[in-house]
Amino acid sequence: MCGVFGIFNSEFAATETFYGLYSLQHRGQEGAGIVVSDYDDEKKKATFRIVKNFGLVSEVFRDERLLESMKGRAAIGHNRYSTMGSAKTSQNVQPFLVNYKSGHLALGHNGNLTNEKPLRKKLIDEGVLFQATSDSEIILHLIARSKATTVVEQVYDALTQIQGAFSLVILTDEHLIAARDPFGFRPLALGMRENKDKHGKKLKPTLVVASETCAFDIISAKYKREILPGEIVVIDKDSLETGEVKSIFLPKSEKKARCIFEYVYFSRPDSTIFGESVDKVRRKLGKNLSHEGGMKPIGDEKYVTVISVPDSSNTAALGFVTESNKQGSAARLELGLIRNHYVGRTFIQPGEQERGLKVRSKYNTVRGVLKNRRVVVVDDSIVRGTTSKMLVQLLREAHPKEIHLRISSPPITNPCFYGMDFPTKEKLITNQVGGDVEKIRQELGVDSLIYLSMKGLLASVPKYEDEKGSYCTACFSGNYPVPIEEATTDKEKNDE
Amino acid sequence: MCGVFGIFNSEFAATETFYGLYSLQHRGQEGAGIVVSDYDDEKKKATFRIVKNFGLVSEVFRDERLLESMKGRAAIGHNRYSTMGSAKTSQNVQPFLVNYKSGHLALGHNGNLTNEKPLRKKLIDEGVLFQATSDSEIILHLIARSKATTVVEQVYDALTQIQGAFSLVILTDEHLIAARDPFGFRPLALGMRENKDKHGKKLKPTLVVASETCAFDIISAKYKREILPGEIVVIDKDSLETGEVKSIFLPKSEKKARCIFEYVYFSRPDSTIFGESVDKVRRKLGKNLSHEGGMKPIGDEKYVTVISVPDSSNTAALGFVTESNKQGSAARLELGLIRNHYVGRTFIQPGEQERGLKVRSKYNTVRGVLKNRRVVVVDDSIVRGTTSKMLVQLLREAHPKEIHLRISSPPITNPCFYGMDFPTKEKLITNQVGGDVEKIRQELGVDSLIYLSMKGLLASVPKYEDEKGSYCTACFSGNYPVPIEEATTDKEKNDE
Amino acid sequence: MCGVFGIFNSEFAATETFYGLYSLQHRGQEGAGIVVSDYDDEKKKATFRIVKNFGLVSEVFRDERLLESMKGRAAIGHNRYSTMGSAKTSQNVQPFLVNYKSGHLALGHNGNLTNEKPLRKKLIDEGVLFQATSDSEIILHLIARSKATTVVEQVYDALTQIQGAFSLVILTDEHLIAARDPFGFRPLALGMRENKDKHGKKLKPTLVVASETCAFDIISAKYKREILPGEIVVIDKDSLETGEVKSIFLPKSEKKARCIFEYVYFSRPDSTIFGESVDKVRRKLGKNLSHEGGMKPIGDEKYVTVISVPDSSNTAALGFVTESNKQGSAARLELGLIRNHYVGRTFIQPGEQERGLKVRSKYNTVRGVLKNRRVVVVDDSIVRGTTSKMLVQLLREAHPKEIHLRISSPPITNPCFYGMDFPTKEKLITNQVGGDVEKIRQELGVDSLIYLSMKGLLASVPKYEDEKGSYCTACFSGNYPVPIEEATTDKEKNDE
Amino acid sequence: MCGVFGIFNSEFAATETFYGLYSLQHRGQEGAGIVVSDYDDEKKKATFRIVKNFGLVSEVFRDERLLESMKGRAAIGHNRYSTMGSAKTSQNVQPFLVNYKSGHLALGHNGNLTNEKPLRKKLIDEGVLFQATSDSEIILHLIARSKATTVVEQVYDALTQIQGAFSLVILTDEHLIAARDPFGFRPLALGMRENKDKHGKKLKPTLVVASETCAFDIISAKYKREILPGEIVVIDKDSLETGEVKSIFLPKSEKKARCIFEYVYFSRPDSTIFGESVDKVRRKLGKNLSHEGGMKPIGDEKYVTVISVPDSSNTAALGFVTESNKQGSAARLELGLIRNHYVGRTFIQPGEQERGLKVRSKYNTVRGVLKNRRVVVVDDSIVRGTTSKMLVQLLREAHPKEIHLRISSPPITNPCFYGMDFPTKEKLITNQVGGDVEKIRQELGVDSLIYLSMKGLLASVPKYEDEKGSYCTACFSGNYPVPIEEATTDKEKNDE
Repeated sequence: MCGVFGIFNSEFAATETFYGLYSLQHRGQEGAGIVVSDYDDEKKKATFRIVKNFGLVSEVFRDERLLESMKGRAAIGHNRYSTMGSAKTSQNVQPFLVNYKSGHLALGHNGNLTNEKPLRKKLIDEGVLFQATSDSEIILHLIARSKATTVVEQVYDALTQIQGAFSLVILTDEHLIAARDPFGFRPLALGMRENKDKHGKKLKPTLVVASETCAFDIISAKYKREILPGEIVVIDKDSLETGEVKSIFLPKSEKKARCIFEYVYFSRPDSTIFGESVDKVRRKLGKNLSHEGGMKPIGDEKYVTVISVPDSSNTAALGFVTESNKQGSAARLELGLIRNHYVGRTFIQPGEQERGLKVRSKYNTVRGVLKNRRVVVVDDSIVRGTTSKMLVQLLREAHPKEIHLRISSPPITNPCFYGMDFPTKEKLITNQVGGDVEKIRQELGVDSLIYLSMKGLLASVPKYEDEKGSYCTACFSGNYPVPIEEATTDKEKNDE
Repeated sequence: MCGVFGIFNSEFAATETFYGLYSLQHRGQEGAGIVVSDYDDEKKKATFRIVKNFGLVSEVFRDERLLESMKGRAAIGHNRYSTMGSAKTSQNVQPFLVNYKSGHLALGHNGNLTNEKPLRKKLIDEGVLFQATSDSEIILHLIARSKATTVVEQVYDALTQIQGAFSLVILTDEHLIAARDPFGFRPLALGMRENKDKHGKKLKPTLVVASETCAFDIISAKYKREILPGEIVVIDKDSLETGEVKSIFLPKSEKKARCIFEYVYFSRPDSTIFGESVDKVRRKLGKNLSHEGGMKPIGDEKYVTVISVPDSSNTAALGFVTESNKQGSAARLELGLIRNHYVGRTFIQPGEQERGLKVRSKYNTVRGVLKNRRVVVVDDSIVRGTTSKMLVQLLREAHPKEIHLRISSPPITNPCFYGMDFPTKEKLITNQVGGDVEKIRQELGVDSLIYLSMKGLLASVPKYEDEKGSYCTACFSGNYPVPIEEATTDKEKNDE
Repeated sequence: MCGVFGIFNSEFAATETFYGLYSLQHRGQEGAGIVVSDYDDEKKKATFRIVKNFGLVSEVFRDERLLESMKGRAAIGHNRYSTMGSAKTSQNVQPFLVNYKSGHLALGHNGNLTNEKPLRKKLIDEGVLFQATSDSEIILHLIARSKATTVVEQVYDALTQIQGAFSLVILTDEHLIAARDPFGFRPLALGMRENKDKHGKKLKPTLVVASETCAFDIISAKYKREILPGEIVVIDKDSLETGEVKSIFLPKSEKKARCIFEYVYFSRPDSTIFGESVDKVRRKLGKNLSHEGGMKPIGDEKYVTVISVPDSSNTAALGFVTESNKQGSAARLELGLIRNHYVGRTFIQPGEQERGLKVRSKYNTVRGVLKNRRVVVVDDSIVRGTTSKMLVQLLREAHPKEIHLRISSPPITNPCFYGMDFPTKEKLITNQVGGDVEKIRQELGVDSLIYLSMKGLLASVPKYEDEKGSYCTACFSGNYPVPIEEATTDKEKNDE
Repeated sequence: MCGVFGIFNSEFAATETFYGLYSLQHRGQEGAGIVVSDYDDEKKKATFRIVKNFGLVSEVFRDERLLESMKGRAAIGHNRYSTMGSAKTSQNVQPFLVNYKSGHLALGHNGNLTNEKPLRKKLIDEGVLFQATSDSEIILHLIARSKATTVVEQVYDALTQIQGAFSLVILTDEHLIAARDPFGFRPLALGMRENKDKHGKKLKPTLVVASETCAFDIISAKYKREILPGEIVVIDKDSLETGEVKSIFLPKSEKKARCIFEYVYFSRPDSTIFGESVDKVRRKLGKNLSHEGGMKPIGDEKYVTVISVPDSSNTAALGFVTESNKQGSAARLELGLIRNHYVGRTFIQPGEQERGLKVRSKYNTVRGVLKNRRVVVVDDSIVRGTTSKMLVQLLREAHPKEIHLRISSPPITNPCFYGMDFPTKEKLITNQVGGDVEKIRQELGVDSLIYLSMKGLLASVPKYEDEKGSYCTACFSGNYPVPIEEATTDKEKNDE
């Protein structure tokens, strides 16, 4: 997974891209980069500068002189998801920046192409050479090899040839282009900031695009709208006059396939994606989970203790508790787990592994809240199950009477070919026990385990009129909206 | 402020100290260090190794070979609070490690001495030279210059001469010593871990001391008890046979002076300090705050929205809401502010400052939760007021109907001379407006502002029998339990 | 300028490439990189690994784990010349590593192409995109786009299309290829190391190629021969059986154009290039310079003091002195200038510049040797003249009676388009004074100045039979052997 | 070994100290540090700043902001010799900076104390604690504990108590003090720079002290004189008026003991030490070596080939050749060995060690100069013999007819207790073969081996009138001028 950001007409384009990426850091921690374009109005020529490297965005730009040196009013940025590799170069870190017949071309991509292999084969047979292993490089080649004459037509031409998930930001000599695949797998939003000079006089606006709207908030820009599935948004100097962008549409897909897991876990709760507040959706996930897995106090209990796994399931837990109380099942949200703010590199010596140090270095329990309580733990999802198991062991040390695990999404049964970094099918805990939830419960060591049903999940997310299908639920259902015969997951590619 | 940790009889003493410091990272982010003692039973001689530097503990020990090289079964560690300085050396980073007539001596200190100046003057007149500006170095000299013959007596001798706040860990050739000043300003706890070999056979235990008990949890040790005000705990190889430590007591002080601000803000909620769970105390602070500053729904409101400033006021906000509901004032805890997990170095260009980027890079609002709501914001304290003001501005952008600020402690009116890093008196917002809460309200731009009263504060913290006074409340009341004529705050010292 | 190195069949291919680059460090200090190929005999498949970055080779590979992780028996490496740039990425650092239809392709290039612009334009028009600004990337595209079916034919095909200077190392899945342009601008040599196992049994040999033979010495390989102008040497597993390599030849050029400046200054004196020892040539340069600019003792002088500018003109100075004595002009070589071994980054504050700190931090005088002497200073060349001027000022402080500067090459009058990093024409001191040597003398502040004549230069370098012209002397003569209409110097490109 | 530097009244005191240390880098590569004093004339108070760390001086001050931040007109600096250590802190890196009763005290020390142990014991018994393992810390304590009232008297008092080798620079609130032990083991020189303003008006001078005069040259200061054995030079603001310094003398020693090895190897040839040019002495060493070990051409040889091991024996080799020719033994100096300019960290994999990579990465042969020649190799000294042996093997690959090794000093037979970093007695090659030169010859694999005699050595160095003995020759003779019963070598201390 990745985060993308683009900005057009800002006095501090590179610095604001830095802040945009900073707020999107959760979407990718392996590497980060910024490309800035410095357009010279007189010479009608742009100078492009690029800085990218492994690490968090605050690490890549640790030397403040880097940002200071990146002059220019338009920029794009990219956060890349964490993967492993030994003798690494930064060749796979984005944005990519190249020169081609129509000038400069910089690109940042969130998503995975599903027809990467045939496209790569075709291009290679035609004499193309690849410098990175990322599928994103293919898009650059398709643009450069298009017969179309304008940059925008070239981009359109290229995007009609690729399949799968893509939310893109592209910076050319004269445009900032943002595009989203016709299925709309990954989010992408458009924002704007009105600008004024010192005397309050209105200046030309700043236009921005980003994976999530939290990146607008940090630079005081306002969310305008979702970039639509299949839409190519073109921003150029004309846009500054009107505040309006140009839109072109790729051929429509019959169904849409917004990634429902973005709502479940991946996006930040303070963001709006796919036109809806993530917080609001997660609240509903918790509400519906309480319908399916709520608990009532028993004996002399006044209430059931509910805790979240901070911070990812905080919102769902809140929804769970609120709804439980509405339904008359007294529940109380407690802060039973504390998350360490200073999570960094840790070192586990032989002989210490079995003590769950990895989980302990991130979480600790508040014992008084848990002791002798029947505790409902709300979590968003279970992937491999190893962390959940360690967490349950940690909770047991606080001596709760019972632990009841509630998951605000269905069991994950299938890998993602559209950009989410799940492990292979065999490593998913659901598949390891043949899909038997009772066996998962035993494996994790909890007193009960209830997952939200697919129905409950779909009831929590927004509906879109006139759409036959609006979401990709492949990781839960195995229904892949785009054929995946030749596709690879992120993990497989990293092992190449 | 600082965090201290000590461990005796561990196969991985340095690594476990690393984890202890990792969990105490909130107590100091400027620098970190570990001293390990490798005792050779045959030669009856210990080799000491030290690694310390500026930065977070995970940064100081980034190169894993450092910890691997630190062999030995006893260790102490220290986290130092963030301060500024231009041409810095690591001379002030602790632990200090020296050689003296009785062998090695390593020391980590949390707290501030109040008779530093006369002691330093006396020592300097006697020909002592000082390599650091830290008052902790004085303690080392007093130990080294004691006429007593045993190490423990020398330590006792030294500690009778110093005044003020000290929670100490000391590592000598044969002992781990932990000591707390007679007033008990700073917390210090004793823990133990039972050990077994692979076959389940009982081994000698590991003994640990730490500023807070969260450092025990991370290494799976159990909290035994508070180290008492005025107690010197001596751990040596005899302690391993019995699991018991030796205690010596400094002359008693009439009153105790536990830092009440540790409960309000500084300690982690999952820790136990001064014999009580921090979480439990903060819950009571919230409960009592609701009595003094609770609000009722008005008009067609179903409930009052309550939010915390994550994560420091989460617990108090929870207590506030629970109590409000008990009292019949419908309140609902909402997640109105999201805290960025990846807080790191940021860069603010000229012209961007007024946008509150510093606050924005740490927090963002969840707009749907706040819009058109009357919102109660629970925070733990206000120091300078600048962050609170920025935060209120950020919240206003989400268009709440009203913002009501509730603080779970009284107004801060005085600096701390016992270790807490408050600014000088003039910079405290309370003093800038002449102590007028209404003026603070106006300055912060909120619709109402209520601080918890001193009475409410004292009603929230544990009582200790047979004590005339149990807490230091100087920052709120100006009543300094130890004379401060010649004392300096941390800040002043850094400006020297 | 740059250095290239390639090795085939070595147990420690990456480490030995490191040492090869280490010995070629003088050819380029901006960046360094190594690509290693790990061929799996069973799978008939190679894994390639790359590490490259800015800095000296010892800096790029400072972390010893990098080299340890680079498994494989074949490798190439590249040293890149120092240039300046603010927001730099490592995209221009070589080797380049790409994937194309025939597998992996890694390339290191020393030299400059003169038809870069038309080739780049043609490729760009065909839809090629460029990730770096280096002309070397063009060669990769030409290989990848060749219609030929074997890798070797593709390389041949590509090399017939490029013009200018190129000494190349190419690593493919199965071959190490080394090639030199038909003019033979840059040196390239072939070497071999016989290998034995512990018991003295003969093993398959290691084959190596390098810009200079000093890279063979450091890994105990033996120089076999020069790779000829226009020769493409193909090394593969068959070569290991016979110890022989395959050769293919590019279409012949009428003349050769070996860079005469490699002999004058650039190559190491312990290397053999173009089939001759650099030391031997420089000795002759000094000898011929003594014929043209030798001095006799006057008055009661017993001998004329001759000093070199260490270490680059040591050999020429030695030749100068030896020949002077043979001719009866008593001369004595003295160590009048000492070169600092620890040349590193320095800092010059405002107000200190005029003191010549840059020169002083590299050289110092031995005063006793110079005082009251008539001193002949032998240097290899003068480019801008600024360093020479500072050096003369430094020498004056030792109070010599006179300073006579002798240069072992003619005045530099023209930039290089084949790889040498000279400044533009205007910045060459010769051109600044209209080619008037007397004016240069005045500018430098010496008592006399004599350059070696073109005739003397040509008399010093080896002759090649059956060649109409053997050297490129363009920097001295302006006679460019390959048309340069569209060519750019290194400097110009860096300013783009 | 170490280098010291001090400067008084410079606009750029810290930066010029940086350059001084830069030129003294050969005296110590382990660590470097600078202390600068910023005296406020109005407040009559000095602010001291310190930066020190492991590494070369250019590495310690890599971040240019460090030097910029070090304001002040007086400074001292120190280079520390390379030693090994695993879990290192910078506590042993100098200068030391402390506070004591009379203000600030910063100290840099070159040399080794021989009564360290009894002094340390005495101080420790009196309650002193030691933060470093360096003997230099003792001097600070003696100053601080002196009963004398003025700083200068305290220093005098302290220096009368220490024995052994010390060349010191001390910075106090108002003085720069430089002192040399009564035996004069280590060099120390005084220099001055006249200053003018832009208009040529004379300003107050800058006064400097340094281990070697090369540190004066780099900052354009002039050598005034040697600081005498037993002299304490006091520089303060009065000195600026007169240009004269105050001198106090320690009680005289009967003999002097200037380290003769400074002339043989350690100092730079462009320096003046002990009142004489190092170059001139080395020339004489070579001259006298030619008397004792010169060779004549035989058969049809026109001359004997003489090479140096660059750069340390260049001067001696030159003297050897010049004198040989004077004596009628035709000899010619050739550049048979080339020294790599880019010596940095290298990596030797298992299986590569026997190839002499360590020597190869530093030196290479010029084969044409050596092939079929009888070669005399002039080197300055042999310590362990391992490098010499490798070097001979490297030379053999160039196929000389014979190799004759000539050493410009006698065999080293004893360790140094006064600061030179020799290994223990057992590791010296001379002692390993029972002092038999013929056995050393066999071990090194040369055709003949001749060391300069003690007589020849003493004939080469300057004479001082009215001195019974002027040099320490202990490493060659075992005659230790200062008792060493309780002394330790550098090496032993590092192994503690």
